[in-house]
Amino acid sequence: MLTLVNGKQTPQTSALDRGLLYGQSVFETVAVENQTLLLWEAHLNRLVAGASAIGVPLSADFLAALSGEAHAAATQCDERTVLRVTVTAGQGGRGYLNPDPMQPTRILSCHPYPQYPVDHRDVGITLGISDIRLATQPLLAGIKHGNRLEQVLARSQWHADWQEALLLDHDLNVVEATQSNVFLARDGVIFTPKLDRCGVAGVMRDYLIAVAQSIGVDTRIVRLSLSDIEAADEVFVSNSIIGLWPVQRCLSRHYKSREISSKLLKLLLENEVIPNH
Amino acid sequence: MLTLVNGKQTPQTSALDRGLLYGQSVFETVAVENQTLLLWEAHLNRLVAGASAIGVPLSADFLAALSGEAHAAATQCDERTVLRVTVTAGQGGRGYLNPDPMQPTRILSCHPYPQYPVDHRDVGITLGISDIRLATQPLLAGIKHGNRLEQVLARSQWHADWQEALLLDHDLNVVEATQSNVFLARDGVIFTPKLDRCGVAGVMRDYLIAVAQSIGVDTRIVRLSLSDIEAADEVFVSNSIIGLWPVQRCLSRHYKSREISSKLLKLLLENEVIPNH
Repeated sequence: MLTLVNGKQTPQTSALDRGLLYGQSVFETVAVENQTLLLWEAHLNRLVAGASAIGVPLSADFLAALSGEAHAAATQCDERTVLRVTVTAGQGGRGYLNPDPMQPTRILSCHPYPQYPVDHRDVGITLGISDIRLATQPLLAGIKHGNRLEQVLARSQWHADWQEALLLDHDLNVVEATQSNVFLARDGVIFTPKLDRCGVAGVMRDYLIAVAQSIGVDTRIVRLSLSDIEAADEVFVSNSIIGLWPVQRCLSRHYKSREISSKLLKLLLENEVIPNH
Repeated sequence: MLTLVNGKQTPQTSALDRGLLYGQSVFETVAVENQTLLLWEAHLNRLVAGASAIGVPLSADFLAALSGEAHAAATQCDERTVLRVTVTAGQGGRGYLNPDPMQPTRILSCHPYPQYPVDHRDVGITLGISDIRLATQPLLAGIKHGNRLEQVLARSQWHADWQEALLLDHDLNVVEATQSNVFLARDGVIFTPKLDRCGVAGVMRDYLIAVAQSIGVDTRIVRLSLSDIEAADEVFVSNSIIGLWPVQRCLSRHYKSREISSKLLKLLLENEVIPNH
């Protein structure tokens, strides 16, 4: 399994990296298909914005090196691979104080593409409701940063028959799922939660909003409750690796319609932004 | 600077450690004086409890190794040293799912003892109020875990004349300071914030509560507001490295009394749980 740390092939990094000490990092999980980094520009843009928000400005030289290494890694990995790209605040600084100057660390690692059952995409999944409530932190909301204990706890509590689980905030708004974003469709309109208090704004979420718009389907970014999920015609989840999974069961509902989600999935496949089965 | 990873002297650890990927770690910052680990048992107990809460159970063998390594490191460091002890969930697991079995990683590193001005302890500090509001997450409250982006952000925003800064939650309760716990004294009674929603329950906080009790001073663990801080006779902050710093200035107040804090500081020094100057 290929791992590059600041461009050097090594499975090791500093034990005193601020990514390890404080979770001061951002990361991307990129689908790689036939040596192509899917949605690479969107991933890179999100990485840069997130890094800046956690006090890690990235120089043009750093980004050029990162991009070069990502493309090089793509040519050396399996035909279908998950590339994790992590950028940390690097070493140094006494305690919480950021080092000045800061020398961020790049970590790129290739991982086997998960082999999810074909049914998840074709038939749909069972979506549970996690007991974990996401904490509200507007300064970190939307960012795919390295402070992910809530997701680790949530994942450890999935029931055996769940393929994903909704995460709510303390006010019981639906925010996202454990490792994906959530959408619902009702009366021909798509709704997805606001991520201004917590949650991760997925690259695939943005892409789906844009692609829905391109076929004349509006997406409204709103506060959603479990009642909205129950009242929906369709529910689906998305991330860069799974693409889109329709939800078959959630709460007491058995969702039958795939009208909008199947159109979107078709477009993801046609546009080659996710691997085919 | 000595760094031990799973007992081996090396500055490197796996770039795929879950401590780095997700901040799935707990840590202790231990004062070392003349080869002695100060308050070691309390640190170890907190580490074990915190690790368990983030899904990292630690075996007796693991803890014996950790303790042996900590004591060995203490004999090899400078006479006065900060020992950071980090325990992570180790490598493995696909995404957020915990690996089974889990093989936790131990990282011990020695750092120079910070040279704070003597005045901080003798005269007192200026305590600012951070703009950062701590997020509420009861499942992680009190734990010194590796998801510390809020503290990193808070530390980066200190004003030049602050030596510490109070952190409030979204309901404007005072929770702690950026790298220490906070106490106030009023009419001969000590008050310190409840840490059931957020914040880190410091080893020195527990010690101070016990030592105050031993001299007949009660500590009440309550919700505190900035008005309580303003109305206090004394305010002080604590952690394992600084011991106790009285607050000289906070908000519009200039605190003159040191009646209780000076007694407590004297006991910390007499009991040799913090280094002398």
